[in-house]
Amino acid sequence: MRVRNKPWADDLITENPQAIVLNPEHYRGQWQSRFKSVQPLHVEIGTGKGQFLIGMAVAHPEFNFVGIELQKSVLAAALKQSLPAELPNLQWVLADGQGVNDFFEPREVTQLYLNFSDPWPKTRHEKRRLTYKSFLKSYAEVLGDGGQLQFKTDNRHLFEYSIMSMTSFGLNLTELSLDLHADVAASQGELENIETEYEQKFAAKGQPIYRLVAQFPKK
Amino acid sequence: MRVRNKPWADDLITENPQAIVLNPEHYRGQWQSRFKSVQPLHVEIGTGKGQFLIGMAVAHPEFNFVGIELQKSVLAAALKQSLPAELPNLQWVLADGQGVNDFFEPREVTQLYLNFSDPWPKTRHEKRRLTYKSFLKSYAEVLGDGGQLQFKTDNRHLFEYSIMSMTSFGLNLTELSLDLHADVAASQGELENIETEYEQKFAAKGQPIYRLVAQFPKK
Ligand SMILES: C[S@@+](CC[C@H](N)C(=O)[O-])C[C@H]1O[C@@H](n2cnc3c(N)ncnc32)[C@H](O)[C@@H]1O
Ligand SMILES: C[S@@+](CC[C@H](N)C(=O)[O-])C[C@H]1O[C@@H](n2cnc3c(N)ncnc32)[C@H](O)[C@@H]1O
Repeated sequence: MRVRNKPWADDLITENPQAIVLNPEHYRGQWQSRFKSVQPLHVEIGTGKGQFLIGMAVAHPEFNFVGIELQKSVLAAALKQSLPAELPNLQWVLADGQGVNDFFEPREVTQLYLNFSDPWPKTRHEKRRLTYKSFLKSYAEVLGDGGQLQFKTDNRHLFEYSIMSMTSFGLNLTELSLDLHADVAASQGELENIETEYEQKFAAKGQPIYRLVAQFPKK
Repeated sequence: MRVRNKPWADDLITENPQAIVLNPEHYRGQWQSRFKSVQPLHVEIGTGKGQFLIGMAVAHPEFNFVGIELQKSVLAAALKQSLPAELPNLQWVLADGQGVNDFFEPREVTQLYLNFSDPWPKTRHEKRRLTYKSFLKSYAEVLGDGGQLQFKTDNRHLFEYSIMSMTSFGLNLTELSLDLHADVAASQGELENIETEYEQKFAAKGQPIYRLVAQFPKK
């Protein structure tokens, strides 16, 4: 998702401090102050252009959502998309998800989402994968016992790797689908699935979409 | 794999006591006496017509193999296929794999194989799946700490279920492929894969073959 820096992105971000956060450390332990209602906090890392999280915020007014994205011009596109709806339960954060436990206090987050994370296929880049054990350790801290991590991808090798990385870290898989769209179709409306931009692109090519839900152990 | 009982099956079995065992309890703790050499014991449950295990016995003279199958006429086909080669490291057992720890002593087995096991898709039949926790408990006993379970299937829901069942039982996934044949092709001869009858049938239809290796925890 390479997009050139665009001047409109800077302007849009500066003009909308009510919807986007540039200093997430400042809100550590205080995220509920950014929302209209105090309610469980769901966080997506690598939110891209935001289609998934906007859809979730509309479908689930009972949760608060934070979307973290590294690339300014990509996140500006998410911001632009979300502004007209003035969603009181959605905030954007321009930052590297690696800092997740500088941004959130232990147990401040209820649910984490990773969608179509960069695959980093080379073994020497394993540490950059968002499901590498050092990331899981950060997630464990901000989520606390029983917190959930939801992960979707089209990338087979990343998914295989992630299942092994998560289960060897001690996470319990509570849901697993090796063909999410077939399962959603078969469920006749029972299974909710808000699609991401990447998901739509890959599903259109006929590739299976993989999904799992993993739970951090209750001690 | 429904095959009618055939009279030739009974005759073939009676005539070949050197290659097939009808009373596996009798050999509990004594399996090495059935082979030419004392060497690690690998067991397949639901061996079908035996193509996989015959291939393994030929490729791996350094291991002893036992194939367990429930259906007499199916196992007779395996026996028939294996006889000409007079493999000194291969034995067949006509029995229900459910009794696996009546057949083998704790730690008598080094490796277990399940290939294209019956899927039992209905939730009320969960207990019959060969990866249900009561089976895993039996496998844990005969394998001992660090023993391995290898599983291949084309059945998506059985594979999803098995990953969850095994990891929640405490097994460590050491290998995982969601498209074994793509991985074998990409490995350019590095990855060994002996195909089963069912595997050839399903792969020919273009379905992905799933595979995992799970290890029982070392205490
Ligand atoms: C392949 S895109 C997927 C976007 C979106 N989730 C989707 O499914 O359509 C991955 C996104 O994650 C972002 N990203 C990668 N590493 C990140 C990190 N450490 N922190 C925050 N965002 C990251 C990238 O900039 C990119 O926008
Ligand atoms: C679908 S077939 C697969 C055969 C072979 N493994 C293959 O991959 O071609 C499953 C086989 O497992 C056998 N089977 C099912 N449950 C069994 C059990 N509890 N003990 C032994 N064999 C069993 C069936 O009789 C059948 O031959």
